[in-house]
Formats: sequence, structure tokens, C-alpha cells
Amino acid sequence: MKRAFVMLALCASPLFTSPALADATGDLGLVIERATGSLLVIDRSDHAAVGRVEGLGDLSHASLTYSPDERFAYVFGRDGGLSKVDMLERTVVARTVQAGNSIGGAISDDGSLVAVSNYEPGGVKVFDAGTLGLVADIPAEGKTIGLVDVPGRRFAWTVWDTGEVFLGDFAGAEPQITALGNAGKNPFDAVITDDAHTYLVGLFGEKGVTAYDLWSDQPEPRKFLTDYGKTEEDMPVYKMPHLQGWAFTEGQYALPAVGHHELLWVDRASLEEVATTPVHGQPVFVIAQPASPYVWVNFATPLNDTVQVVDSRTHTVVATLNPGKAVLHMEFAPRGAEVWISSRDDNKVLIYDTRTREKVAEIAADAPSGIFFTARAHQPGL
Amino acid sequence: MKRAFVMLALCASPLFTSPALADATGDLGLVIERATGSLLVIDRSDHAAVGRVEGLGDLSHASLTYSPDERFAYVFGRDGGLSKVDMLERTVVARTVQAGNSIGGAISDDGSLVAVSNYEPGGVKVFDAGTLGLVADIPAEGKTIGLVDVPGRRFAWTVWDTGEVFLGDFAGAEPQITALGNAGKNPFDAVITDDAHTYLVGLFGEKGVTAYDLWSDQPEPRKFLTDYGKTEEDMPVYKMPHLQGWAFTEGQYALPAVGHHELLWVDRASLEEVATTPVHGQPVFVIAQPASPYVWVNFATPLNDTVQVVDSRTHTVVATLNPGKAVLHMEFAPRGAEVWISSRDDNKVLIYDTRTREKVAEIAADAPSGIFFTARAHQPGL
Repeated sequence: MKRAFVMLALCASPLFTSPALADATGDLGLVIERATGSLLVIDRSDHAAVGRVEGLGDLSHASLTYSPDERFAYVFGRDGGLSKVDMLERTVVARTVQAGNSIGGAISDDGSLVAVSNYEPGGVKVFDAGTLGLVADIPAEGKTIGLVDVPGRRFAWTVWDTGEVFLGDFAGAEPQITALGNAGKNPFDAVITDDAHTYLVGLFGEKGVTAYDLWSDQPEPRKFLTDYGKTEEDMPVYKMPHLQGWAFTEGQYALPAVGHHELLWVDRASLEEVATTPVHGQPVFVIAQPASPYVWVNFATPLNDTVQVVDSRTHTVVATLNPGKAVLHMEFAPRGAEVWISSRDDNKVLIYDTRTREKVAEIAADAPSGIFFTARAHQPGL
Repeated sequence: MKRAFVMLALCASPLFTSPALADATGDLGLVIERATGSLLVIDRSDHAAVGRVEGLGDLSHASLTYSPDERFAYVFGRDGGLSKVDMLERTVVARTVQAGNSIGGAISDDGSLVAVSNYEPGGVKVFDAGTLGLVADIPAEGKTIGLVDVPGRRFAWTVWDTGEVFLGDFAGAEPQITALGNAGKNPFDAVITDDAHTYLVGLFGEKGVTAYDLWSDQPEPRKFLTDYGKTEEDMPVYKMPHLQGWAFTEGQYALPAVGHHELLWVDRASLEEVATTPVHGQPVFVIAQPASPYVWVNFATPLNDTVQVVDSRTHTVVATLNPGKAVLHMEFAPRGAEVWISSRDDNKVLIYDTRTREKVAEIAADAPSGIFFTARAHQPGL
């Protein structure tokens, strides 16, 4: 009797049912609850929150990546905390505060290594994905940004202060670090294309974007978009755009114009600007709806109650939605049937059908920001 | 005591450990064992077979697709059997023999519908993915081939005998079937591009390939490659190539030349042939290594002990491997770090590191053919 009682107690939970022991993980996800340092576990098929993981530290600017089996999440917190979360057990299984201030990370293509890019002190630390034991510590002469995974157990990153770009190879016993030259003045973020062909570095200290061909044996910087918006006055930048959201569609890059109410369209092969699209505000995320001609855009404060949908063929806005207050992020179902949108100040995650563009469900969440489905585990650069 | 014994007995297994009750499904997969009508459950991270599911009927020409949560596989057998397999419990949870002879199927973008294309009688049947209850029965005036999922709860398919192409919309209460005209003489297979933009139909009764723009409101047939190899004599076709393996890379399609020892490279935008690559034999699968410039090719009998790697930038063969006897299929880890290769007549699945192109492990399997990782659940067209 006593044992039965204990088991029941273990299964009880004030908010959520107990973790299903036999559970598939392909349609799970995590929502960052920035104010409380917690993660909401979501089930995409059920349109439901199914658990919560607490004790993640400062998640006011956080991101995460997934293990190849879609069981574990590696969470990169603002406070330099790297936490490994078990989606099935809904617990933190390992945690290290590995720097004073971190801004993101990536997992190697084989799932064996997790790298974190840090501000204080600057540099990149690489950890064993199983134990979170330190594998390599690569210093930098400034804040590191734009850390991405590159096939072959490699990572690329950029230094804000110096503009330098590095490629690190961690396949052998000792890391091999190669300098790839200078991207430009104050690179603020970088991203790798979905085919891992091009590393794109966005510049803040000067106009432009710098591209590296990572399929080349000796990648060299190639600058483009060096004069966008030069005829207009720049506005103050209310929120730095995120480049991980850069959309790659129809042979083009769809980029946010820093300091302008505009999207910029660039031909992927020639790197020539082909069009601009006037939009509602300063773009933050520009994300391609999978298997469609559309990109979805959200905006910086104070215009952040709106989401727009733009057709990549005509470069025109085809829909304007008002999902809620302080829309911080959007995440698509991997085959594009739905988009999940976080409305921080409504404390909700809103689910839209992408075909009808109508809301089909909503989930309560505590000041939600980033939404991450486990399908990211299978995508290079995420 | 008795109860403890029963539980132990349930967990015992002559070949495999019991299904782990707490298991993630993101790195699982299934290998079709064609001779025995069974499926080998594989774990990608562990380089291991972890279970077997039996009783699938005739799997001599079989394929499968996955539910969005990566828990269930829908297996399409040669004998018209549609089986729903639980990867966690390793059991067949539902099975229906729905036609005399089926050749493949697809799952809708939201995971709610499974469609099967049949030879005898020809046509498409659509089933509820949960129960396998029949939802729609669309007859055809011949054998249906090239059935693919199209975003918005739609499917496209083609009829071998008549050359007709259809788009079926199953989002509403009643299916809406639209005829998309005639693709050409005896289409033998069709495929949809990874962005769901283009439906490509390969022709056998005449030279060429027909493309449909599925982003258009009124998709129309556009024929290309209509005169490839006309200066040479065609060889007998030992094995019809599979188009699901068509590679889309570097703005090109890499296509198998039916009846020739050649790959054909076609510009994705202009549909012009840009290059040919002489290869070891008649190509069967031409598959892009994710996040790389390479495509991997296997060949028809009797030259099927060889795999070649071709660079999509230079269109040259950069490696020739001899993995084993009767190489029938190749499946990449979704981020490209490994390729798993089935060698039917060696009764093995061989695992190669794609960076070194060296074998890192092998797994015993009974006459293996198709290899399918659960990551396919997240990819349009797979």
C-alpha cells in the first residue's frame, strides 16, 4: 500500500500530467519563459503544453539546440549558463555556468560537441554533449557572435570588436582554428545557409553583409548590400534583427534592413539586390514558411503586435496579422502546416494554420519568447 | 515473486533488448528486410539494430513514411498491404490489405491523412492516419505512380497508362480533384522538390521530364530534357531509377539518365541541361549529401556493388566506393555526417563517415533494401 502511494505521489503534478515514459519526441518543443527562467514543454500534435522545466537561470536572451535523438536540449542563457534538459523526464540533467555572459551556441553535425559563444570573457568554449565536460577553450579578442555548426564536426564564429571570422575544426585530437579574414566593422550576427554553403555576416558598424563560401578550401570575405538605404536617413535601431531567421527562398535571401522598415531581397548566386519590400516596422525575424513561397516577418518595439506575410515571387505583402502584444518569435511546423507565435505581453503562444492564416489554438505561457521544435535537431545551422 | 517473474519474462528477448520505455525517437530508423517481410529497427546514434518487427507481408518492393511525432511508420507493401508500425512498442498496431498491388504512399503535411498509390486496381486511397479507416477512394484509368504530399493537406499523383497528372485537395469535407493535364507518354515515377515548388514527372515512353509549378494557381506541364542521349543507342534498362532520390543541389537537379551510364545536370530555373557526368553504371538513386556539394549514386544490376560520389560544382566523380554486394539504397543522417548503405547480398547495412568516406560500422540485416530514418517525418515530399 505504502509503495503504491509513493508511486502515485511521484506521478502527481499540480499542473501537468506525469511524463509519459514511452513517448515519441518528434513533435515536442520548448518555449522559453523569459521572466521565470523556465521552459514550457509543448506537444505540437496535441496543441498543448505538457510540462515545465525550471531552474534555468537568466533566460532573458536565450536560445537552445537539440541532440540528434531529439531527447535533450542544450540551453544557452544570458548569464553564461549552459544547461542540458531531458525532454522525456523534464529535468535539468547537467548545468554549468561557463562564462559571465553568453549569447548562443550550436551542436556539431554528429551530436558529439556543443559550442557556446561568449561575451565576457569573449571566445568559444566547446563541451562534450554527453557530460558537458570542457573539451576546448578558444579565446577571442572581443565578444563572439554568429556561432554556427559546419559539417565535419566544425564551427564558425565572428568577433564583434575586431570583425574577424574563424573556422574551428574539432574532428581530431587537437582543435584546428583557421582565421578567415575580416568581415567588416562590428558584425552583429551571422548565419549559415541551409545547405551549409554560405556563412553570412551582418554588419552594424558599416552598411553591408559579408559572405563566405564554406565549400571552398580557402573561404574569403565577399561584401554585398554595401549601400542599401543610403538615400534615406537611418532610424534608431530598436531591436537588433536576428539573422538565424534570415529566409532562403526562391534563389534569394530575404534580409531585414537594419534601421529601416524594409525587407531586402538578394539574388543568392550573384549577391545583387533584386528588390525591396516596404513593411510595417523594423523587421526582427524574417522566416521562410517551409514548402511555400512565403516569408513571415515580425517587428521591433513599439510596432511588435503585428506579423506580415510576404510573397517571395512578387515581393509584396500578402497578409497582415495582429496576433497579440509583443510578438517575439515564430516557429513553423517543419513541413509548414502551422506557425506558432509567441505573444510575450499576452502570456500566450498562438497557433495559426498557414493555409487559412487563421488562429486554430492558443496555449498559456509565462512571458514566452523563443519557440523551438525538436525538428531543429535535423537541420544544419539550427 | 510470480509477478516479478512475469515482468522479467516480458522483458526478455532472444535477439534484442526490450523496448526502452523512456525512449526518444529522433534518431531511430527502419530497414526493410525484403525477403522476410520484416523491419529492422535501428538506432543511428548507437550504430545498432535495436529491434525487429515482423508480419508486414510482401516487402519485395516497399517504402514507408513517418508520423509527425516520429513514433509511427506507415509501410506500403508490394501486396497492397498498408501497415502502421509503432517504433516504441515495436509492433504492428494496424494493417489493411487495401488493394491488389501498391507501390508507395505519402502522409499529409499535418500528419492526419495517409495516401496510397495502387496498380491493381489503379487509383489512390486515402486513410485516416490514426485508425487506417478509409477516408477517400479516387479511381484512376490505370496504374498510379509518383504520389507525393503537397502542403495544405493535398496530394499529387500521375497515371502510367494515360500520362494524366492530378492534384487532390483533402482539406475540406469532400475531396477536390483537379486534373493538371498530360505529362507525356508512360510516366514511370514523379517527385516533388524539397520546397514543394515543382512536381517533376519522369517519362519512360518518350524522352524527357515534365515539370509542374505547384505554387501556381493553374499548374501546367513544361517538358524538358526531351533529347538527351539521342545520339547514342539506349541500353536495356536493368532497373528503373527511383526519382525520390533525385538530388536538388547548387541550383540544379541531378537526374539519372534512363538507359545510360550518366547523370544529367539541369539548371533549376531555366530547365536547361548544363552538364552530364559519365558514371560507373545505370544510376538508380542519385541522392544529395545534406549540407555539402556532393551527390551519391548507386547503380543497377550487374554493376551494383559500387557507389560513386559526384561534385555538383564540377560535375566530376570524386570518389568510387565498393561497399558490398547488391547495394540497393543509401540514407544520410539528416545533417549529413554519415551515410547508411544497404548491401542486400552481404546481409549488411554499412555506415560511412561522409567526411573521411571510410566505413565506421556495420550492422547485420536480412537482405536489406530501403533504409528510412525518422527525420523524414519533418521533410516535405518524404
